[in-house]
Amino acid sequence: MKKITFGVILFLLTLSLKAQKLHSPNGNLELLFSIKEGIPFYNLKYKGNVVVEDSKLGLRLFDDTYVHFASENERILGNSSDLDRGFTKSSEQRDSKKEFWQPVLGEKKTYANYYNELSVTLNQTSSDRNLIIRFRLFDDGLGFRYEFPYQKKMEHFRIKEEDTEFDFPADMKAWWIVADYDSQEYQPQTTLISEIPIQWEKAYDKHSSQTLVKNAVQSPLLLKKEEKNPLYVNIAEAAVLNYPASNLEVDADGFKFKTHLTPNKMGVKAYVQTPSVTPWRTIIVSDRAEEILDSKLLFNLNEPTKYKDTSYIHPSKYMGVWWEMIIGKSKWAYSTNTSVNLTSTDFSKLTPNGNHGANTKKVKDYIDFASENGFDGLLIEGWNIGWEDWMGHDKEFVFDFITPYPDFDIKMLSDYAHSKGLKLIMHHETSASAINYERWSDKAFQLMNNYGYDTVKTGYVGDIIPRGEHHYSQWTVNHYYKIAEKAHKYKIMVNSHESIRPGGESRTYPNWITAEAARGTEHEAFKGNNPDQQTILPFTRWIGGSMDYTPGIFQTRLDYYFPGDKRYVKTTLTKQLALYVVMYMPLQMAADLPENYRKHMDAFQFIKDVAADWDDTKIIAAEPGDYIITARKAKGTDNWFVGGITDENQREFTLDFSFLDHNKKYDAVIYEDGADADYINNPQSYKIYQKVVTRRSKVKFKMARSGGFAISINPKS
Amino acid sequence: MKKITFGVILFLLTLSLKAQKLHSPNGNLELLFSIKEGIPFYNLKYKGNVVVEDSKLGLRLFDDTYVHFASENERILGNSSDLDRGFTKSSEQRDSKKEFWQPVLGEKKTYANYYNELSVTLNQTSSDRNLIIRFRLFDDGLGFRYEFPYQKKMEHFRIKEEDTEFDFPADMKAWWIVADYDSQEYQPQTTLISEIPIQWEKAYDKHSSQTLVKNAVQSPLLLKKEEKNPLYVNIAEAAVLNYPASNLEVDADGFKFKTHLTPNKMGVKAYVQTPSVTPWRTIIVSDRAEEILDSKLLFNLNEPTKYKDTSYIHPSKYMGVWWEMIIGKSKWAYSTNTSVNLTSTDFSKLTPNGNHGANTKKVKDYIDFASENGFDGLLIEGWNIGWEDWMGHDKEFVFDFITPYPDFDIKMLSDYAHSKGLKLIMHHETSASAINYERWSDKAFQLMNNYGYDTVKTGYVGDIIPRGEHHYSQWTVNHYYKIAEKAHKYKIMVNSHESIRPGGESRTYPNWITAEAARGTEHEAFKGNNPDQQTILPFTRWIGGSMDYTPGIFQTRLDYYFPGDKRYVKTTLTKQLALYVVMYMPLQMAADLPENYRKHMDAFQFIKDVAADWDDTKIIAAEPGDYIITARKAKGTDNWFVGGITDENQREFTLDFSFLDHNKKYDAVIYEDGADADYINNPQSYKIYQKVVTRRSKVKFKMARSGGFAISINPKS
Repeated sequence: MKKITFGVILFLLTLSLKAQKLHSPNGNLELLFSIKEGIPFYNLKYKGNVVVEDSKLGLRLFDDTYVHFASENERILGNSSDLDRGFTKSSEQRDSKKEFWQPVLGEKKTYANYYNELSVTLNQTSSDRNLIIRFRLFDDGLGFRYEFPYQKKMEHFRIKEEDTEFDFPADMKAWWIVADYDSQEYQPQTTLISEIPIQWEKAYDKHSSQTLVKNAVQSPLLLKKEEKNPLYVNIAEAAVLNYPASNLEVDADGFKFKTHLTPNKMGVKAYVQTPSVTPWRTIIVSDRAEEILDSKLLFNLNEPTKYKDTSYIHPSKYMGVWWEMIIGKSKWAYSTNTSVNLTSTDFSKLTPNGNHGANTKKVKDYIDFASENGFDGLLIEGWNIGWEDWMGHDKEFVFDFITPYPDFDIKMLSDYAHSKGLKLIMHHETSASAINYERWSDKAFQLMNNYGYDTVKTGYVGDIIPRGEHHYSQWTVNHYYKIAEKAHKYKIMVNSHESIRPGGESRTYPNWITAEAARGTEHEAFKGNNPDQQTILPFTRWIGGSMDYTPGIFQTRLDYYFPGDKRYVKTTLTKQLALYVVMYMPLQMAADLPENYRKHMDAFQFIKDVAADWDDTKIIAAEPGDYIITARKAKGTDNWFVGGITDENQREFTLDFSFLDHNKKYDAVIYEDGADADYINNPQSYKIYQKVVTRRSKVKFKMARSGGFAISINPKS
Repeated sequence: MKKITFGVILFLLTLSLKAQKLHSPNGNLELLFSIKEGIPFYNLKYKGNVVVEDSKLGLRLFDDTYVHFASENERILGNSSDLDRGFTKSSEQRDSKKEFWQPVLGEKKTYANYYNELSVTLNQTSSDRNLIIRFRLFDDGLGFRYEFPYQKKMEHFRIKEEDTEFDFPADMKAWWIVADYDSQEYQPQTTLISEIPIQWEKAYDKHSSQTLVKNAVQSPLLLKKEEKNPLYVNIAEAAVLNYPASNLEVDADGFKFKTHLTPNKMGVKAYVQTPSVTPWRTIIVSDRAEEILDSKLLFNLNEPTKYKDTSYIHPSKYMGVWWEMIIGKSKWAYSTNTSVNLTSTDFSKLTPNGNHGANTKKVKDYIDFASENGFDGLLIEGWNIGWEDWMGHDKEFVFDFITPYPDFDIKMLSDYAHSKGLKLIMHHETSASAINYERWSDKAFQLMNNYGYDTVKTGYVGDIIPRGEHHYSQWTVNHYYKIAEKAHKYKIMVNSHESIRPGGESRTYPNWITAEAARGTEHEAFKGNNPDQQTILPFTRWIGGSMDYTPGIFQTRLDYYFPGDKRYVKTTLTKQLALYVVMYMPLQMAADLPENYRKHMDAFQFIKDVAADWDDTKIIAAEPGDYIITARKAKGTDNWFVGGITDENQREFTLDFSFLDHNKKYDAVIYEDGADADYINNPQSYKIYQKVVTRRSKVKFKMARSGGFAISINPKS
């Protein structure tokens, strides 16, 4: 606990008399805005207790200078014209809203958007500039942002840093990943806030592109006050548009965080032309972990979509020629070359490496299996020329996104897939050469239209080109939305990898249906994911939008392919099934190889049955890092699916079926870890049995270490 | 003179026994290549005297590292895998070539390309990598470059620096401008090499984008050994393709220069994939200044064009709605706004500023005057929306290049111009947002095709976007050529401003007909050009290609427009005429306002008559910084034009007409400074008279301070 002198307390009390108060609709949350010695502050209470202490608000801007020298950086060292002090309040406005809206794809049929609003217009006397700070207080948390109204004295400017603080009164448990301008694919860490700097050094591995920020963490960040009455807090950001993503600098002694925006190599964080707004800073608060998972606060803070036609946007279940490359069984590249040139290399003359994954014959087999089992999509990676030297060379013209390898018959395969009721899913790995992707994207999307592809998986592996930009800097953020908007013109859905983490923007851009932007299943084949990882990500990464986690690995041990290989997926087979419910994924992959599913067609049945779009979702029970139990009702049906997962500890859970409808009986098919199941020693031990259930049923499940259970529930006809 | 110990001399003598010699076709130049302790060296002699002492060759490369931290730069500090030591010669090849080729547009009908070649393959034993250094020795100088053949151990790499040295045995006079990654528009300086560091600090003014490199200068650099037998040396570079432009670091005590490539903000100078070559480093050498001006060495070092159709490329004489904005008489912008948004601003609703240059009525008047006087082009700047906040705001989407201002009737004006036999010249100022220009260039060129424009003036004022690139970094160099190639697809000629200085690349890209890339006439309306500037630029900036210098200012004193204004063009009117001959400009502007030409229609006649494309050129007499006298024979005719200019000193010159054909009589119209002419006090004093001349004629001309003379010569019929 921080020490505070009596004098300071008195001083604060005096000043708070001039403060503005705002309450959430249910009254549980109270926001206080004040100006102290010209500096704006806010604090937040939940059920009468301080959640966030008085925390500073403000931004620092660049001045303009003119003469630049190569080895110096005068522009950045110029005197500042900051927006962080000398303010007086010139006016305030209050508003409130209660609306219900329907996401195109979502966890529930209808989301409620219900808040009270306070917007304060501040005037910086010395510069005669106005800044608006807008607060929206919902029952589940707070959103606030800076707004820069058009004014003659502030038409264009550059942001040096946003200094939004989140000052907590006491140490808390924190679930975090290291801050980075280019990667989010780090192991989640669980420590106290005060322990972050110590753990930080051990919390990263090497990535294909990374720019780490010491002693800072990424958002969404989950915090928990572990007292008799626990409190869960999620800090995130919403509507990150024309602005960089933020990290959070940690003041470990003060239990305080401060925004740290992603810069470009000039050190500039954002180029702004007024009128403009920042993203919303969000603080979701609840004494129940389940309510954090249930929050739609980030989506509510985004604007409704302007798309006129969203009819082409649909949930999708897909397989892919993918996992076999990830584990090293086959290759993305076609030839033995390790250097190619798209303008001069004749790929038909190269020596095939004999192990190219995306060859016509193999893809045809995948099409057969996927279509027979009711999937509607098949992703094929490595179909197009350029993979020989796609990574690690800062190569700008690395792919053209339109030319298949000689052994990939795109016309035949597209036709064949359509004849089986399946659409191929396009793959546009950009190698982070965003500039090259922009040059080719019209041709690439046109090709998709020509062959009837309606979904693209994009990828940004490596350092961003334009060089000097980062994966989450303002320019690149704008790039992702340019691509999403262009895809919309071609009626194409986007699943982006290595892109910015979502902040509810799918409300506005519903064709950007999912993203990776965290450490997904692929890392099980690299350095591994911890068994508790899947119980954390829904509290952090998922809070602003779905993730393409690519579960469904049945053959979890890789020594099956490569004798002696020590890699293994750190879950039981049953937990892999449960992920399809615990993790919201409107674009849902069954990631393993057909040969592995063929051996477990009984378990595979759950993946075939489970829905990807929902009318309702109930977070039954959850504790970050420990377990999550979720029930969801499939879109337009009375079918329910339940998933339960646990961390590295085995766990019993008694499921109360009270979420089911009154007066109905249901057939439940239950997929449970076998009695001897264990994620290390016996991951493929499971049992499947049927049960009739009603809303009064209570069933006890035993989850193995890193195990789980999955249930599909259909009303008895 | 540098001291060298006897021991070292002996050592060098021993080693030089193993050196490779190469002679120019006429034997005047001798190149010596040697390896000393694993390091490659070259030296150069002219008529037996050392021009360049043993000078090092080599490059430094980056190693790859993986973990990046935000505030550090580990990648750049990584251990190097340099290509600058440990070499042995593994083979050599010799070749020679004599060819004649015809430039699409040029100073002569035919250029001779005649050289002896030595290429040395070096092996770096420790890394088992090969590097080729190729020397071409012409009668007028040396070109050499590094070549990176494809090899398994060197497929992709990044260049940290190229360390090519130019080591001179003694101090020399140097004509130079300060080194900068973003601007070439500096006053030429004249000092000894040893004085460069002292003068450097006084040699720059503020530019809209600049990144100065201390104690370095730009190329082309002109040097002169001022002895009884003077020697002129020009250091430049040719075929700067997929590579940055270089500056030259100065070792003032050692009379030595070293290449310093333009980096991006990552500190990387070039991203290379083998096979690849660097630009040619060039050293033009002569004991006659005139031969330096006459050298086509840089063009010869470029590849012949691959364009199949060059028929649309033509010389052009144009006027422009331009100078009136430069001097501040009218504006590029249409409205009173100082902030606009191309996606949301309705320009038709803005308040006009009442002083917009490119309005329909005015443009029509310009069309009338230009067409009546035989011009075939009219440039109009400020025709398109976006100029309200185009500069200084790092704005990415600043222009769309297709939407005219409300008061510019593009359809009517294009039709009107065509009806008068005139083509409008398109203006694409990009505000250095190259990335935005790439996004819009197809639409922009299509619009030009639609309205029958065949020439575009591009501009890159401000800091380059993608941010982190420079005007002369590798990415931006590639951008310029992308635009040139795209323009070729649309049969469009390009005149680029604020782009990279040319290095003879117009041989390969003949539709990129001219460029600014130096301090042009516009600076006369800013901080001014020195009276000797025009006698220096042809030795430096012009050595690799023509410049859009935009001469023809008759109203040199700006107090004519703005009483009390101290700005004035620092030449006489007659010198402005002479520039049309002295400066090779296939795209040739008459830059002044029609109202000023109307007052001097007799002098204007020379601008109307002078050709823009040539069958022959004779450099009659020249001394850098003092004077240039040039005679040129107009394409496909027997008409000659002569121009003579002087610096701040008045000068007499007796012109020997022996360049004329035998047995022909000619009518010469002579434009000469008036007896009382003076660039400060009486710039508009001139006399015009006729004379019959033959090749035996000798005529004495008097040039006023910063004055000149111009002659048009037609065979008597």
